[in-house]
Amino acid sequence: MLSFSVPPLQQEKIEEARQFIDALTKPPGSLGRLEEIAIQLAGMTGEIKPNIAPASLVFCADHGIVEEDVSASPQEVTYEMAMNMVEGGAGISVFSRMIGAPLAVYDLGIVRPVPNDKVINKKVRPHGTANFLKERAMTEEEAWQAIKVGYEAAQQAIRNGAGCIIVGELGIGNTTSSSAILAAMLDIDPETVVGHGSGINDQQLIHKIDVCRKAIVLHEPKKDDAIDLLSKIGGLDIAGMTGAMIGAAEMRTPVLLDGFICTVSACLAELLAPGAVNYMILSHNSVEIGHQIAAKHLKKEPLVQLDLRLGEGTGAAIAYPIVQAANVMVKDMTTFQAANVSQK
Amino acid sequence: MLSFSVPPLQQEKIEEARQFIDALTKPPGSLGRLEEIAIQLAGMTGEIKPNIAPASLVFCADHGIVEEDVSASPQEVTYEMAMNMVEGGAGISVFSRMIGAPLAVYDLGIVRPVPNDKVINKKVRPHGTANFLKERAMTEEEAWQAIKVGYEAAQQAIRNGAGCIIVGELGIGNTTSSSAILAAMLDIDPETVVGHGSGINDQQLIHKIDVCRKAIVLHEPKKDDAIDLLSKIGGLDIAGMTGAMIGAAEMRTPVLLDGFICTVSACLAELLAPGAVNYMILSHNSVEIGHQIAAKHLKKEPLVQLDLRLGEGTGAAIAYPIVQAANVMVKDMTTFQAANVSQK
Repeated sequence: MLSFSVPPLQQEKIEEARQFIDALTKPPGSLGRLEEIAIQLAGMTGEIKPNIAPASLVFCADHGIVEEDVSASPQEVTYEMAMNMVEGGAGISVFSRMIGAPLAVYDLGIVRPVPNDKVINKKVRPHGTANFLKERAMTEEEAWQAIKVGYEAAQQAIRNGAGCIIVGELGIGNTTSSSAILAAMLDIDPETVVGHGSGINDQQLIHKIDVCRKAIVLHEPKKDDAIDLLSKIGGLDIAGMTGAMIGAAEMRTPVLLDGFICTVSACLAELLAPGAVNYMILSHNSVEIGHQIAAKHLKKEPLVQLDLRLGEGTGAAIAYPIVQAANVMVKDMTTFQAANVSQK
Repeated sequence: MLSFSVPPLQQEKIEEARQFIDALTKPPGSLGRLEEIAIQLAGMTGEIKPNIAPASLVFCADHGIVEEDVSASPQEVTYEMAMNMVEGGAGISVFSRMIGAPLAVYDLGIVRPVPNDKVINKKVRPHGTANFLKERAMTEEEAWQAIKVGYEAAQQAIRNGAGCIIVGELGIGNTTSSSAILAAMLDIDPETVVGHGSGINDQQLIHKIDVCRKAIVLHEPKKDDAIDLLSKIGGLDIAGMTGAMIGAAEMRTPVLLDGFICTVSACLAELLAPGAVNYMILSHNSVEIGHQIAAKHLKKEPLVQLDLRLGEGTGAAIAYPIVQAANVMVKDMTTFQAANVSQK
C-alpha cells in the first residue's frame, strides 16, 4: 500500500499572480477565465510563470463486464485502438501532436499481448478485469499495482520535463465500470449517471443501468473506500488514471481532466489523496450524463463545451491551448509601466 | 465604390466531409462541435483538408466621440497600444505568436503620427473620426477607403499563405460607435446594447447610452445601409474590419470573429456583401452585452465562453486552436479501414 501526501496550494503566490496580472496591458479582468487559470496555476506550481509543457498519458485495459453486452464496440477495439494510438492515427495521437505533447500509452490489461514496443507493457492482469457481475473485478493488490503504474508514469513524465499532465483512457466497457463506481460512491441510482458510451441504443441503456445496479447490490462497495470500489467494480485503466493524478498532484503539477471516466478517476484520487483535486483543471463538459455529476462533485467548471464524448484524453488535449493562453499571458504580455501605456 | 461578390458554400463538399469524418477512428459524432467546424470549413474552402494557417489583422483608429467622456481609457492609449502591439507585448501579440499567426497592425486614423514602421500607415483621416454628436464621423468616401484598406489587407494575407483570418481592432471609444451602429441597424434602444467597454462605471454607462441615443436622433442613419451607418456614427477601425471580412469571404477564406466591435463589423459586412456571414466563425461569447445581440443577429454560436472583453482580436486567437483541432482531425486521424479497427 502506498501512502500519499499532496501539498497545499501556495496562497501567497495566488495573491502575487493576481497583482501581476492586473499590471498587464489590458483592462483589469478583461481576459476573464484566462486570468483565473493563471492564478490557479501559480497556486499549484508556486511559480507566477510556470512551465506547463504538456505530456499525454493514456491507460488501456479490458473489462470483463463487456460479456454482459454493455458496449457498442467489440472488445478487440481496445487492442486495435492502442495500436492506432501509438501509430499516430487516433484522436489523442493527433491532438497530442498538435499541442506538442509526447504521448505514452500504457497497457494495464489488454486481453491480448500487444506486439508493439511503443505500447508500454505494464499488464497487471493479462486478461483484463473479471466480469464484476460474477466476481470482483480484481484484487485489492492489483488495484494498488495499477495505481502505482499511473503514479510512476506521471512522475516520470514530470521528471522528463512535463509541467501539465493530460490523462486519458482506452478500454471498451469502461463507462459501465465508471458509472457503477460513481453511483456507488455518491449513493445514487445508476440511472442518473449511465449514458450511451460509445453509442448503445436505448434498450441497451436500460440493460446497462440494470448491470450497474446488480453489481452494486452484489458487492456492496464502501462508498468512501477507493480501493474497495476499484477492486470490486472498477477497471485497471481507471485505477491507472487515478494514480497518475495523485503522482502529478504530489509534484505540484496541474492535471487536465478529460471526460466522464477521467472525472470518476479524479473522484477516486481525491478519496485516496485528499487535496489532489486542487491540482485538477476540468477541460470540457462531456455529452455523457455522468460527467456533469462527477464534475459537480469535484466542484469544477469546464473550460470548454464542445459536445465531445470520445475519451482517450482528447478533450483535455483539445482544451490545453486555453491553459497555454493563460500561461503565455503571464509569460509574454508587458506591463503598463514597461510599455509606457497610460492608465486613467 | 466597390462591388462585392461572395461565392456560395460548396454543398457537395459539406456532404463529402460529413462522410469522411464518420469513417475516422472514433464513435460517429463523438468529436461533437469539432466535426461541425470541419464540415463548415469544407463548405467554405471547397477542401476536405484545407489550409487554415492563421493571420491576425488589427485595425486601429481614434474616435472623436471620446470628447464626450464615454471611455475608461484616455485617447492616447490607442497610439500607445498600437506601439505595444508591434513591439510584441499586447494580448493580440502574444496570442498570435502562440498560434503561429503573423500579426499586421494597420493605422487607419490614430490621432498622432506613429513613428514605428511596423505599424502600417493607411491613415484615412489623420485625426481619426469626428465627434458624431456634432457632425458625421466621416464622409462616405472615407468609409469606403477604410473598407478598402481592410479588404486589401485580408486578400494580401491570403496571397501570403493565410487560410484563416483573425480580425481585431484597437480604438479608444469604439464600443460607443459600435453600440450606436448596432442599435440603429436593429432599430432597438441603445440601452440594450451599451456595455461597460474597457471599464466605465454605472453613471458613465447611463451617459454613454444617452450619447448613442442622441447620435441616432441627430443623424437618422439608414438601418440597412452600411455606408450610411459607418459614415454617420461609425469608426475607421470598424470599417477596416468590415472590409477584411468581405475580402476573406470573396476568397473562400474563414474569418474568426472576436468580440462586440468585431461582430458589429460582421453585421455591416453582411449588409454590404450578402453571404459573407457564411465564412464567419464566432470565436467566443464576450462579456459586453451587445455581443450576444449581434451574435444572435448573425445566427452564430460561440466556440468558447471565457468571459473575455479585451478585443484586439484576442478572443479569436485564443479560440483558434479549437478550429485547428477540427482541421488536424480531418488531416491526421486515420480511418477505421486504414487502421484495421473493428466496427460493430
